Amino acid sequence: MTDSSVDNASAARCLINGHLGAGIPVTDRGLAYGDGVFETMRVGRGRIALLDYHLNRLRRGLAALRMPVDLAATVLELEAEAERLHTGVIKLTLTRGTGRRGYAIPAEFTPTRICQSFPLVSHAPEHAREGVRLFECQTRLALQPMLAGIKHLNRLEQVLARSEWSDPGYAEGLVRDTQGNVIECTMSNLFLLENGCWVTPDLGSCGVQGVMRDYLIDQLARIDEPVSIRSVPMATVLSSDEVFCCNSLYGVWPVVGLAQSRWPVGPRTRRVQALAEQVLV
Amino acid sequence: MTDSSVDNASAARCLINGHLGAGIPVTDRGLAYGDGVFETMRVGRGRIALLDYHLNRLRRGLAALRMPVDLAATVLELEAEAERLHTGVIKLTLTRGTGRRGYAIPAEFTPTRICQSFPLVSHAPEHAREGVRLFECQTRLALQPMLAGIKHLNRLEQVLARSEWSDPGYAEGLVRDTQGNVIECTMSNLFLLENGCWVTPDLGSCGVQGVMRDYLIDQLARIDEPVSIRSVPMATVLSSDEVFCCNSLYGVWPVVGLAQSRWPVGPRTRRVQALAEQVLV
Repeated sequence: MTDSSVDNASAARCLINGHLGAGIPVTDRGLAYGDGVFETMRVGRGRIALLDYHLNRLRRGLAALRMPVDLAATVLELEAEAERLHTGVIKLTLTRGTGRRGYAIPAEFTPTRICQSFPLVSHAPEHAREGVRLFECQTRLALQPMLAGIKHLNRLEQVLARSEWSDPGYAEGLVRDTQGNVIECTMSNLFLLENGCWVTPDLGSCGVQGVMRDYLIDQLARIDEPVSIRSVPMATVLSSDEVFCCNSLYGVWPVVGLAQSRWPVGPRTRRVQALAEQVLV
Repeated sequence: MTDSSVDNASAARCLINGHLGAGIPVTDRGLAYGDGVFETMRVGRGRIALLDYHLNRLRRGLAALRMPVDLAATVLELEAEAERLHTGVIKLTLTRGTGRRGYAIPAEFTPTRICQSFPLVSHAPEHAREGVRLFECQTRLALQPMLAGIKHLNRLEQVLARSEWSDPGYAEGLVRDTQGNVIECTMSNLFLLENGCWVTPDLGSCGVQGVMRDYLIDQLARIDEPVSIRSVPMATVLSSDEVFCCNSLYGVWPVVGLAQSRWPVGPRTRRVQALAEQVLV
């Protein structure tokens, strides 16, 4: 999120395990080890956009962390909170709950469920209209297949990458892995058009598998524009015909500048942007 | 820590920014992103063992996270809490404090300081006396030089590695990196004796640089037993003459079993154990 995304985080409504609250115990393993997952979801007309996609990623994350959680109560809460909020953003965090010191997963644990409601993100509308420039981050993502793709609470790589620039002329930053391949942006996924075909980086070893990415892959397949998921060297990005980044809050931002490359906002990107906007009403 | 290490975590005394407390805001970046560092310290006779080593690692961690914090108040608090506790364990956590949603580091932030006091860890005394067997973890550590060596709050790799076994016959688990080199144990560092010389794995790309490891490297240098810090393949561990693991809470545990290898508790390890016990009184 940009700094303008939320006026005052502390003003948000927050449910903790279903009850109004604002704090968690210091013994929560979410704090101690980042032992948990989260989802940040756009709410419009009282409903969560791409809810099924968010729930799928949540389930994959919980499985990767060996953290079985029945999501029935979570889904009911999310739907009720979305109806109450009408328009805005809901951030859901599920941690393994409180625990003794030590990494060992307790034989019995009660997850902590944190559901925060925020006013709508006010991303600059010109980002979607005119496109964005990407900062080229030096922070590299480590290769960790066990945690790749999911949205866990260990996010120091993203914090470091996002801290590399403060120039508002860059709306996002491009991040590569330790082998040099392009993976994603700090809070977005990346797509590029190469020889008329869509490509998005493979996230099998690192990166966050964004729900907007998954949704667009599905939608593009339906209109016979299958997306190729593979390793993407930097040179491929720079020589591509169109580039965009996406997430489930802002939709699609055309990329118009990266390093020495410049692009106009392409017609194919505009079509994808329209697909994203359909679910972000 | 073993499950027996603390009887009841919630019974611990806790200071939050100097005041008695038990919770932190859900908006703390320590919870949201693991954006912070921690130290777990042994207290004996009212003093923190290896305090200078802990503070050095803390400073390195804060620098790596671009999180300037004046530690003067922290040191005073640690010393006062140690005197009050007399014997036990203090866990200090420093996070970047509360923040809005989004990875960007706030231009101004007020760190959250959490100082928890626990009763003394009751590790099984036979571990130090008779040695331990190591479980061979399948979880691999990713190579991330920007975060290597420090004790940050992103510890999912350790959680996953420690969750691989529950057989109390294994007191610790050996962890390798994604290239197959031996790095450390889940909560300890590793030393081995090869051709009469001590070796410990290089932690330049992953792993936690334990304060007991640093202390023993210094002490062994003083008695003309310099420790070689380098890459350690699994075969080197298995063929070594003596092996031990160490941390700042339990000191030194001789390793007597790993995979098909068996070792007696070696005389050189006993001497190192005595060095560790000097500072853990």
